[in-house]
Amino acid sequence: MSQLPEQPADTSIPTSADVARLAGVSRATVSYVLNNNTTVRISESTRRRVREAASDLGYVPHAAARSLRAGHTRTVLLPAAHVPAGPLQQRFFIDLQSDLRRLDYTVVQYGSGGLDPDEAARAWAELRPVAVVSPVGMALTRVGIGVLTRSGAKAVITLGPQPVDGAHALVMDQREVGSCAVRHLLSGGRSRIGVVMPQEPGLAPFSEPRLAGALRALDETGADARIQPLPLRYEEASAEDLAARWRSLGLDSVFAYNDEYAMLLMRALQDAGVEVPGEVAVIGADDLMLGRLLRPRLSSVRMELATAQPLAEMIDRLVQHPGGAPERHYLLRARAVARESG
Amino acid sequence: MSQLPEQPADTSIPTSADVARLAGVSRATVSYVLNNNTTVRISESTRRRVREAASDLGYVPHAAARSLRAGHTRTVLLPAAHVPAGPLQQRFFIDLQSDLRRLDYTVVQYGSGGLDPDEAARAWAELRPVAVVSPVGMALTRVGIGVLTRSGAKAVITLGPQPVDGAHALVMDQREVGSCAVRHLLSGGRSRIGVVMPQEPGLAPFSEPRLAGALRALDETGADARIQPLPLRYEEASAEDLAARWRSLGLDSVFAYNDEYAMLLMRALQDAGVEVPGEVAVIGADDLMLGRLLRPRLSSVRMELATAQPLAEMIDRLVQHPGGAPERHYLLRARAVARESG
Repeated sequence: MSQLPEQPADTSIPTSADVARLAGVSRATVSYVLNNNTTVRISESTRRRVREAASDLGYVPHAAARSLRAGHTRTVLLPAAHVPAGPLQQRFFIDLQSDLRRLDYTVVQYGSGGLDPDEAARAWAELRPVAVVSPVGMALTRVGIGVLTRSGAKAVITLGPQPVDGAHALVMDQREVGSCAVRHLLSGGRSRIGVVMPQEPGLAPFSEPRLAGALRALDETGADARIQPLPLRYEEASAEDLAARWRSLGLDSVFAYNDEYAMLLMRALQDAGVEVPGEVAVIGADDLMLGRLLRPRLSSVRMELATAQPLAEMIDRLVQHPGGAPERHYLLRARAVARESG
Repeated sequence: MSQLPEQPADTSIPTSADVARLAGVSRATVSYVLNNNTTVRISESTRRRVREAASDLGYVPHAAARSLRAGHTRTVLLPAAHVPAGPLQQRFFIDLQSDLRRLDYTVVQYGSGGLDPDEAARAWAELRPVAVVSPVGMALTRVGIGVLTRSGAKAVITLGPQPVDGAHALVMDQREVGSCAVRHLLSGGRSRIGVVMPQEPGLAPFSEPRLAGALRALDETGADARIQPLPLRYEEASAEDLAARWRSLGLDSVFAYNDEYAMLLMRALQDAGVEVPGEVAVIGADDLMLGRLLRPRLSSVRMELATAQPLAEMIDRLVQHPGGAPERHYLLRARAVARESG
């Protein structure tokens, strides 16, 4: 089989023994230097010689071999999302990776699409991560958490709309989004409130707690009002259907799940001659810039995520001091931004 | 230190020796059964006993140990994106992960935010992947590719707007998007064409080739026309500035980078009294549903990505037969969708 110069066979992979030979030191010294181990006194000139030899040979340490020697890894597993994540979450994960790398962890994202939560936990456990953050939309069970901790994970942290029993939880509580929208509509004098429920797959972990939050806000304020779920597909035909029977529903306002569904529904209402905000107040969520381009400008619920750095520090603390009681941290903040649509 | 029952200490991690003891077989037999090795005859009842013992103990194999024994891993590294990826790319990667898992690879995404391409290559090499797909926006150099192949990667595949010398390339050729938009405008009789250049960081790997494609289309058609780049920030104030001096630019059409920038600019033009499409034709890209909600409905360039499965099969083929000449595959297809805006 022909080999390009830049694709040599396995046998040419440089090992730490090669580095030791070239630098004229022991393998142990190579290991101390390249792992930045400072408990052993090694002269600066020797350290330099080892680094130069490693560089000349193109040697990089083998994470698997190092983790077997150390008995544990520095791997933090951030399972890759099943469902396309929004820009807010993407940014959060990108920041989290940088912060963890600064704390000397190896951050690995592991795909789990098509696996059930227990299968996914077993697949992740094969990588022997020292900490695992499970993704939104993958509800780890106690069985899965047990598999991971028995395989050496010091910290198993679930991330999602709800905490999971027995695990540390980072909660992006979507209920707060629905509560916030409904409190805003109530404060504007509306009382017959529709809540859009998207029919696209994968959105139930978001839409159901938003509806629950909407109901909770009604309950807490004790207002004489009602809430009606409104199934909607993200298609013009579905919005036209809903707009055509709008007046028969007897609603004076709608929380439209997010700004995209709100823009879709508002266009259909306007085309059907239903006046926004006169006949119906409309509020979305995400505070997209595009919503501000509409006339009337779209009111929205703005969400903010906590910064990633405290989470990176929390992971590091849980790895170093495992076994404490499950912790819960709430990451999501929401507030209504009133514009012209209601 | 207190330990919850579901967070036992390291010493309790079950090993294949524990499974062998419980099942009453040798460690080799455990290994054969759990790795689905069919070259050795083992009775179905023994296989079942081993699997039950593994399940009872909560044993999962150690990927690192297995890869050290095998001399290579089945790890395919998909580095996590720096820049927030669009839904089209996210879906592509989710599908690719599933397809690779079906081919018995372990798919790992490794964050590289904050690292330069050579540092990133060294970090990835520590995981000894058998194949690496580099992300859009991370231009691997020949040095980085060399580090990865010397550490055992059989296939290094770059993914991005342009191929990289000496590596297999999956090309999402953004030039095609710009060409497509300009050919559409020219065919509608426009000849003085603005091309929006977003000023947000991280978008240059997309916007620059789109502009290059726009210029190429002009060149190829030999039309008596001109193209003018138009810097724009994704902010209402920036769009208002551009709209206020629009008539002084002498343009009759604009390719607005994508639908979001197109929606922003079209709103500002309309608010400034510039008629769309009468005075200026506007075309975006991405064919978002939201663009269809505007009046006039937004024309757009629709993009399609090849399906992930042939890529998964290509990775598997390159792993099994490394060393061939670099391959190039073009993943992106683009076509103009004419609506009302031009």
